[in-house]
Amino acid sequence: MNHIDGGVCAAKGFLASGVHCGVRKSRTKRDLAMIYSEKRCAAAAVYTQNLVKGAPIAVDQANLADGYAQAVVCNSGNANTCNANGVEIAEGMCELAAKALKIHPKDVIVSSTGVIGQPMSLEPFETGIPAAAAALGMNHADAAEAILTTDTHSKEVAVSFELSGVECRMGGMAKGSGMIHPNMATMLVFITTDAAIAPDMLQSALSDVVQCTFNMVSVDGDTSTNDTCAVLANGMAGNAPVIAPGADYEAFRAALCEVMRTLSREIAGDGEGATKLLECTVTGAADLTTARTAAKAVICSSLVKAAMFGADANWGRVLCAVGYCGRDIDVTKIDVDFASAAGRVAVCRDGAGVEFSEDEAKKVLLEKEIHIEIALHSGEFDATAWGCDLTYDYVKINGDYRT
Amino acid sequence: MNHIDGGVCAAKGFLASGVHCGVRKSRTKRDLAMIYSEKRCAAAAVYTQNLVKGAPIAVDQANLADGYAQAVVCNSGNANTCNANGVEIAEGMCELAAKALKIHPKDVIVSSTGVIGQPMSLEPFETGIPAAAAALGMNHADAAEAILTTDTHSKEVAVSFELSGVECRMGGMAKGSGMIHPNMATMLVFITTDAAIAPDMLQSALSDVVQCTFNMVSVDGDTSTNDTCAVLANGMAGNAPVIAPGADYEAFRAALCEVMRTLSREIAGDGEGATKLLECTVTGAADLTTARTAAKAVICSSLVKAAMFGADANWGRVLCAVGYCGRDIDVTKIDVDFASAAGRVAVCRDGAGVEFSEDEAKKVLLEKEIHIEIALHSGEFDATAWGCDLTYDYVKINGDYRT
Repeated sequence: MNHIDGGVCAAKGFLASGVHCGVRKSRTKRDLAMIYSEKRCAAAAVYTQNLVKGAPIAVDQANLADGYAQAVVCNSGNANTCNANGVEIAEGMCELAAKALKIHPKDVIVSSTGVIGQPMSLEPFETGIPAAAAALGMNHADAAEAILTTDTHSKEVAVSFELSGVECRMGGMAKGSGMIHPNMATMLVFITTDAAIAPDMLQSALSDVVQCTFNMVSVDGDTSTNDTCAVLANGMAGNAPVIAPGADYEAFRAALCEVMRTLSREIAGDGEGATKLLECTVTGAADLTTARTAAKAVICSSLVKAAMFGADANWGRVLCAVGYCGRDIDVTKIDVDFASAAGRVAVCRDGAGVEFSEDEAKKVLLEKEIHIEIALHSGEFDATAWGCDLTYDYVKINGDYRT
Repeated sequence: MNHIDGGVCAAKGFLASGVHCGVRKSRTKRDLAMIYSEKRCAAAAVYTQNLVKGAPIAVDQANLADGYAQAVVCNSGNANTCNANGVEIAEGMCELAAKALKIHPKDVIVSSTGVIGQPMSLEPFETGIPAAAAALGMNHADAAEAILTTDTHSKEVAVSFELSGVECRMGGMAKGSGMIHPNMATMLVFITTDAAIAPDMLQSALSDVVQCTFNMVSVDGDTSTNDTCAVLANGMAGNAPVIAPGADYEAFRAALCEVMRTLSREIAGDGEGATKLLECTVTGAADLTTARTAAKAVICSSLVKAAMFGADANWGRVLCAVGYCGRDIDVTKIDVDFASAAGRVAVCRDGAGVEFSEDEAKKVLLEKEIHIEIALHSGEFDATAWGCDLTYDYVKINGDYRT
């Protein structure tokens, strides 16, 4: 597997665009993204588990019930959530896209991200969606930009991989910065591939991989109302379609895992106000749920996050988070290390503090990517979770997000 | 029931002191508190549910197994948690206190608060505990000060109440600012009363009242390793002892509830870096667990907390938190109001936004105490939770707590 350029346009037959349509007032900010495949695609998606759901999610669930889609349309600036006419608007966006692209409205995936509960109208889309269709090309970067909200940079990835000797490509783009604590999918993630794969195998791979990627990311513990991760596979690579488990399914799954893990790290590292990416690895757990729950508890702890912002080796907060995660853990066996490009420092052995150099620890924690490594010595299961530090800027961004 | 002065010395026969013993380097900060009752007391306590527990908790569980105690000794500056010799030190503190007070070591309740995993020695207590015993008097304010860490002010309360016509008194002191998300008790809370009540009735009242008071407080979602709430009842009011459920038990329970609710609000309002007390009330839930879980999810949401700091009526975040709280709630029936001393503003009806004046909302949210009122219209159960806003100072305090 190799990383390549091209984002969501890396796979054969996929075009994209990102334009300004007017949902946002600022004319300098793109607010409408479109992805289009020349051929109809097998499609799969996972969504937020929040009971309060954005209106587009209900429309997507209906549109993807047959396992196929051909385009994505997504606006930023308004989440289309808790609006009286939300479903009508989401369906209207699909119809406008279908008309502009000459496809069926049920083959459109629609998403929205931004403020919840703001009035929304179809008006900006009446000219915006045809303009986005007209702008379709290898414009993956424009599309990746158009879905951002408080993100500080675009998040794109693409890889090439082989299925039974045939080269395939897969690319993805994501947005997500605040309100990230996905319980089923994450914020908005769109992945395209030219591999041929049956819809049920695609959904199976997606539902599986999301557990160890986006579901292990937390920025602030708040599960969004609009989380969606959708994958489109148009088969144009010409491989023998993946219709059952086996070597090709595993190779496809590995590519999907690489794309989704890369985007997970990008989302965590660009958490609102973040200055550092935190990666917490728990090893030696008695079961997988314990490994995942403990890793995520550490990543979610406000006290751990603030300590990492301050490059303070306050490992007691790591142990504290493991202790309250709700799983049965022998805390007297826990070892904790902090590591980064600047080195490694052991801070806790058998659940108790060990002497370490504060200067050395500070040097390790001043890096941009920090690894918190926790060994439970109680079994064979491992898990990794990603998060970010808690900073003044998180508070600033969220203290007055709407203005 | 009337509020009175005197804190933990309000009840007959209780003395207190707060001195500097040297656990903290700063000589201007008291770091050792003592409470003593002339008579042996019925005693009850609840503790953190974190698996990582401070060493004093194991000692207290053993000491209170018989339902009686006579004194409390508590230091700030070091949590005596994840230390190799923690139990030895906690037992040593009890022995020093017992010797100074001429009581049995098993009748001492010991607590510690501060940094986790720092080396600790008995040495400061060898002179400090006798000095605290010598300083005993009506010094409730000194004691309340000596247990503080990042708290900005002492937290004390006292009430008088009647049991079958006999006047009784109850007073309490608390500390707690960061690492507050009690799952059984809260940070350190010590309550004294001269009411006569059997140990089992006292434990029953405490375990009951903690559910709707300290367990409904969250500052940052981190459950401490040292949370302890202990009550001492010395019987010196002369009432007929409360030994069974009935009117006197209910009157005692009401006084305990008032004391614990007052301290809960104090703890939430003095959350690390907080500028506002948040009180979230959920009404009309189908069951009590749903009411409590939803209220606490709102209070715990970093996004809600940051919006309140910015006086931003971003009610979508309130709905979002209710939606991910994990209980089965009909989100299309939810109403949300924001209220304060400056007025009330309706922001959501039937799960969707309603028009409101942003100026009016800003005025309401600029107050120091904000009420978030959520009506579920699905049943008869209510709950209230307390929290605080998320501010720059929370990050500052926790970015470098240890230095």
